[in-house]
Amino acid sequence: MGPDIRTQSLTKPVTVAEYLFTRIHQLGIRSIHGLPGDFNLIALDYIPKTGLKWVGSVNELNAAYAADGYARCLGIGALITTFGVGELSALNGVAGAYSEHVPVIHIVGCPSTVSQRNGMLLHHTLGNGDFNVFSKMSSEVAVDVARLNKPSEIADQIDHALHECWVRSRPVYIMLPTDMVTKKVEGARLADLIDLNEAPNDPEREDYVVDVVLKYLHAAKSPVILVDACAIRHRVVEEVRALVAKTKIPAFVTPMGKGAVDETSPEYGGVYAGSGSQDAVRERVESADLVLSVGALKSDFNTAGFSYHTSQLNSIDFHSTHCTVRYSEYPGVTMRGVLRKVAERVDLKKLTRVESPAVKNEVKKNYEDSKTITQAWFWPRVGEYLQEGDIVVTETGTSNFGIWETRFPSGVTGVTQVFWGSIGWSVGATQGAALAAKDLGTTKRTVLFVGDGSFQLSCQEVSTMIKHGLDVTIFLIYNEGFTIERWIHGMEAEYNDIAKWKYTEVPEVFGPSPKQVKKFIIKTKEELEKLLKDKQFNAAKGLQFVELWMEKEDAPRALKLTAEMSAKHNVRLED
Amino acid sequence: MGPDIRTQSLTKPVTVAEYLFTRIHQLGIRSIHGLPGDFNLIALDYIPKTGLKWVGSVNELNAAYAADGYARCLGIGALITTFGVGELSALNGVAGAYSEHVPVIHIVGCPSTVSQRNGMLLHHTLGNGDFNVFSKMSSEVAVDVARLNKPSEIADQIDHALHECWVRSRPVYIMLPTDMVTKKVEGARLADLIDLNEAPNDPEREDYVVDVVLKYLHAAKSPVILVDACAIRHRVVEEVRALVAKTKIPAFVTPMGKGAVDETSPEYGGVYAGSGSQDAVRERVESADLVLSVGALKSDFNTAGFSYHTSQLNSIDFHSTHCTVRYSEYPGVTMRGVLRKVAERVDLKKLTRVESPAVKNEVKKNYEDSKTITQAWFWPRVGEYLQEGDIVVTETGTSNFGIWETRFPSGVTGVTQVFWGSIGWSVGATQGAALAAKDLGTTKRTVLFVGDGSFQLSCQEVSTMIKHGLDVTIFLIYNEGFTIERWIHGMEAEYNDIAKWKYTEVPEVFGPSPKQVKKFIIKTKEELEKLLKDKQFNAAKGLQFVELWMEKEDAPRALKLTAEMSAKHNVRLED
Repeated sequence: MGPDIRTQSLTKPVTVAEYLFTRIHQLGIRSIHGLPGDFNLIALDYIPKTGLKWVGSVNELNAAYAADGYARCLGIGALITTFGVGELSALNGVAGAYSEHVPVIHIVGCPSTVSQRNGMLLHHTLGNGDFNVFSKMSSEVAVDVARLNKPSEIADQIDHALHECWVRSRPVYIMLPTDMVTKKVEGARLADLIDLNEAPNDPEREDYVVDVVLKYLHAAKSPVILVDACAIRHRVVEEVRALVAKTKIPAFVTPMGKGAVDETSPEYGGVYAGSGSQDAVRERVESADLVLSVGALKSDFNTAGFSYHTSQLNSIDFHSTHCTVRYSEYPGVTMRGVLRKVAERVDLKKLTRVESPAVKNEVKKNYEDSKTITQAWFWPRVGEYLQEGDIVVTETGTSNFGIWETRFPSGVTGVTQVFWGSIGWSVGATQGAALAAKDLGTTKRTVLFVGDGSFQLSCQEVSTMIKHGLDVTIFLIYNEGFTIERWIHGMEAEYNDIAKWKYTEVPEVFGPSPKQVKKFIIKTKEELEKLLKDKQFNAAKGLQFVELWMEKEDAPRALKLTAEMSAKHNVRLED
Repeated sequence: MGPDIRTQSLTKPVTVAEYLFTRIHQLGIRSIHGLPGDFNLIALDYIPKTGLKWVGSVNELNAAYAADGYARCLGIGALITTFGVGELSALNGVAGAYSEHVPVIHIVGCPSTVSQRNGMLLHHTLGNGDFNVFSKMSSEVAVDVARLNKPSEIADQIDHALHECWVRSRPVYIMLPTDMVTKKVEGARLADLIDLNEAPNDPEREDYVVDVVLKYLHAAKSPVILVDACAIRHRVVEEVRALVAKTKIPAFVTPMGKGAVDETSPEYGGVYAGSGSQDAVRERVESADLVLSVGALKSDFNTAGFSYHTSQLNSIDFHSTHCTVRYSEYPGVTMRGVLRKVAERVDLKKLTRVESPAVKNEVKKNYEDSKTITQAWFWPRVGEYLQEGDIVVTETGTSNFGIWETRFPSGVTGVTQVFWGSIGWSVGATQGAALAAKDLGTTKRTVLFVGDGSFQLSCQEVSTMIKHGLDVTIFLIYNEGFTIERWIHGMEAEYNDIAKWKYTEVPEVFGPSPKQVKKFIIKTKEELEKLLKDKQFNAAKGLQFVELWMEKEDAPRALKLTAEMSAKHNVRLED
């Protein structure tokens, strides 16, 4: 090939890698998760050059989990893997981000376009000359797939992919061949940020929907607001809070919406999950004559086994792609604009409200004489330990259900993966969350609640926490195996048992600096009380690892209920 | 639904789970890898009932790696995961088995057919009502996908899938809905084993190919046999050995074929990998006027970067799906029958041979005064440590290339993943290999060589080794990071560094019984010599963990060469 005339015509040539990483930096990302692999090495050289930090994760699945946790706390995350082996290891983590609407940019370093065209029998391939097979798999869990094969198109492809990732709040897949990394593209474009605004609704249609909503809202006697996952993921938490603040309508959250409403505000009514709710909450929501449901994701585990008793006739649903009022659908009218106008235009004089139920912290109620730490007592007790601004990560298992009973202080970020529910996710996600807090320049505490069974899957992510000097407090619930599975099927089954690790020794093997790690074995309520009141422990510097003993068969009320429903679905026969 | 008339017509009704696991048992499998998940729990109840053992792996990727290692040593392996989360975590491991022709049965417990039909918003889904999306991904790395949705078809589906898995020596995917597990199918079929024989070649076509082969073989002046991966994977090692024994033609192996030829036999000539070979080997193979190439898989890492200097005009290729003589192709004529007849009909009087080069053990040549253990010295030295019948697992990285310089005693099984090359694979594969040896009732030693970087990805699989009391000796090459990547790109780059673990402490945290684990830190040649001569160490009982210090930038000769070629391909521009 002769001199590249395309390069000569560029105003401000920059390499593809610089372009990509600069764009990523512009989105607010400061750290990139991932592992080196021969097809991404050249690209990795450009990470420090563009002001980004390389995390250097311990394996790809954990890296994907971490990028997910990072995105949940900072807004968006990024991950680099290598072709075939690395990207497939990460796939479950990326699928979780897709399922739960978390924007993660997955960049895969792949063989050069020349090798691809020649169908070479390279390592990390299936030996069939097909270099698109893995991106095809990933396309099922990505809202955009960008194969960067032609320099003249690459800047557009990158901008489009990052736009989609942010606006649709789901993963995108970027396939970066080794020989494209240093190709030149137009750097002058970088002066203009990617426009991340959603397309506004058509005003006439939007006004129409707002009018309909207001009609029902003004007519209602006991409306409630119910805030779910997609309110957080599609970034309308501020709009919802404004609406609650202005209207004083009782506001509830689902398990996946936890954290979206300030739980210390008088309007906050508690966690609604059908039969899994506390009685007062259930009664209040189910007796409402209008439910303003924001960003609902009514999955089995988010509804205690599909146990809602609310009626569509009494519901208005606000979504990121459409709104539904009773049975009338409004495709293309998205929630942000509607929520803003409803808050703006609502006539407070026409509003009728019934007060929120008082949210009780049930620590005392659940205290009994035994020294044993029970799930029923523990989770409300956690509410008293937490501080304003904490990041709280809960693992699929007892923690995910227990946390329903924990009242958050103001400004707490709840991080859970209730819908996708991949065991082991939380350890990676915690690393990402804590790193995001650090990258944002905050001194937030990041607190993880994880079961022993789940911890085993992804334990080495603690190494990354140590390497980056993150402040993380881990409560490892030591209850000898997969309690959530026990409640679904096989209470005594061997397959729900796990090997007996010395958990508090785990962080030590990852080579922490002296005093970086503090470890605690807590077997009684009294020991826990003492720890939770300890000043140094509350300061939460470095890695604090608490092995917390609970009974093998003890589980939060909501978990038992959901597990029972789940077991029924598993064996339900045809009608 | 009324009483099931189909069940009533069965001679000997058995549940789907019993049928499936009995078939698996009949294939010789005794242990099933995997993790529990709510969609597979009911099925797991039937594992002990059918005489199988549940491994209870630590995570799904490691479980898949282990099933792969198990299959490489016992002939076939099996793995159970749960829908979505579990199966995707395993996908890279299964893809490796596909890429490298290893028969692994992947069973995925999934939601009930009723839930699927109703498109329910269940956990572990993408929320789009598509329950086939994950099986679609897996279909890219499986030779059969069996969705067990209709009781009347299930027995046929299972038999077909297992047949394909064995005969095509690649993974199959079996999707088992919760409500099908206890459905009844015809158990009387179980009296007849699945026919695992390949379809024989058409005799006339086969004879034709044999005649052509013999014509060239009898005419050749200096023929050689070159044995590669697919000879092992498609089970023609016995045929090849018979041909070598009868003809005394010099026999070479590729890196992926290592172990297929008895390396103590006079015909054995060494490892051929183009420019990566030892000089005498390269000269002998490349000067041959006829190469009988059996089961070739000429990937970059198996050929030291496509550096063969052999000519198709001098080659006869034997494959599991076809044969090729010079440029004449014979589709559908498979190697087994042809190899047998060639061995039967070859006229020894018409054969001309040139002797094999002497295979030298180069320990002494590579010994220099420094105390430091060098890669050049270490690998030949390993050849003196190994014993007859050992199973030797080598990780992608320095080990995979170093082992080319190790002469195997008789009956050694070499286990590597040169083609797929997934970092971390070997730790899982070692667990599977050692378990296979145990299940086969042997007392073989299983020896792993793995780098510190790779070990970090899958370290918790050591827990499974300990749980099952497996006899495994691990040599962890402590050289501070990804040396293979350093040689491709970024010798000093931060991204090729890793956290500094206390490796020898790792097995301890997994809760071994007293004396189950022995650990060694070996920094010099002298220390290593002492250890390798120690009687107790050689007895190899329990888990022996050796941290072996080597220089960060030291790498086997063949690795340096291959890395250089690889780096060139990565940046090669269009012509």
